[in-house]
Amino acid sequence: MNFLEERIIKDGTVKPGNVLKVDNFLNHQMDVALLDEIGREFKRRFNDCKITKVLTIEASGIAIAYPVAREFGVPMVFAKKSKSVNIDGDVYVAEVESFTHKNKNNVIVSKRFLNSDDHVLIIDDFLANGCALQGLISICESAGATVEGLGIAIEKGFQIGGRVIRNLGYRLESLAIVDGMNAETGEINFREQK
Amino acid sequence: MNFLEERIIKDGTVKPGNVLKVDNFLNHQMDVALLDEIGREFKRRFNDCKITKVLTIEASGIAIAYPVAREFGVPMVFAKKSKSVNIDGDVYVAEVESFTHKNKNNVIVSKRFLNSDDHVLIIDDFLANGCALQGLISICESAGATVEGLGIAIEKGFQIGGRVIRNLGYRLESLAIVDGMNAETGEINFREQK
Repeated sequence: MNFLEERIIKDGTVKPGNVLKVDNFLNHQMDVALLDEIGREFKRRFNDCKITKVLTIEASGIAIAYPVAREFGVPMVFAKKSKSVNIDGDVYVAEVESFTHKNKNNVIVSKRFLNSDDHVLIIDDFLANGCALQGLISICESAGATVEGLGIAIEKGFQIGGRVIRNLGYRLESLAIVDGMNAETGEINFREQK
Repeated sequence: MNFLEERIIKDGTVKPGNVLKVDNFLNHQMDVALLDEIGREFKRRFNDCKITKVLTIEASGIAIAYPVAREFGVPMVFAKKSKSVNIDGDVYVAEVESFTHKNKNNVIVSKRFLNSDDHVLIIDDFLANGCALQGLISICESAGATVEGLGIAIEKGFQIGGRVIRNLGYRLESLAIVDGMNAETGEINFREQK
């Protein structure tokens, strides 16, 4: 197991409904040393890519993207989520329909911060159905930017998001892929990755 | 002028209605090197305090709080904003009424991440009317935690937030205090601080 998988085993909790709670170290209370290590790991994995920008989405993606942006020495941009488009100025907007809540959200990035010269590393904390990532990819496409890859801390391997992104041909690196969880025993099964 | 004031002059834009746009380096697109320096500056200013936790609020506060938490070697917690209280488990909730929008938001932190042993440094990017900070202070009080101080990147000195926090006796450090702006000339006046 890698450092993140070990931490999930140690401090994560499995709840009914295939919910993995990691809020004591990853997405409500945050262990900054762990996040720094996540940043270094994504730098190792995407070191061969020319990256000009790290793109994420508010709110919990920000703390994952921060150390990645620092390792690459590039700006970080976070997309804003809104029911309505009410941002001053020209923006890229992706309308994203959630599979679970069946509601629509707009994902918004100012045109000033993404263009066709950009080579983007998309970063987020969780990947489940992948709607958020699809919105970010859509925004990069609108901008003419190149998506060099996507980096996810924890992928729920039993949901479709990862498959869709990989089927589309994107390079997706998930530090931990959870293929199964048991709320009664607390067991978590990670996909073995080379 | 300090490093942040210089950056605001260089890259900030004054818009009508006393709006200061810093979204190209601070709260939409982010300059991580600048954020790291903000973290070091708050560590210098609060170095005499025993800090066990850095508390902020989603979303743009997260990237200011991250480097501060790293400098102090403590966890960062971000409060969530919601119209309804729908978080699993016991939470501290502060209901905050915005002065400008006259609507109410709940500011929420899980009880597992704040208690009476905590010595908290509250961090946020902007301070205007101070409603968000008031909510965070209220949550700390509910938890019995000690608020050691508050650190703000940019304070709008012509709005009441800073005065209220200081009147209440809290130690508030704002890296830049804007006392006046002119949208026509682009002029920004910073309060001189020793």
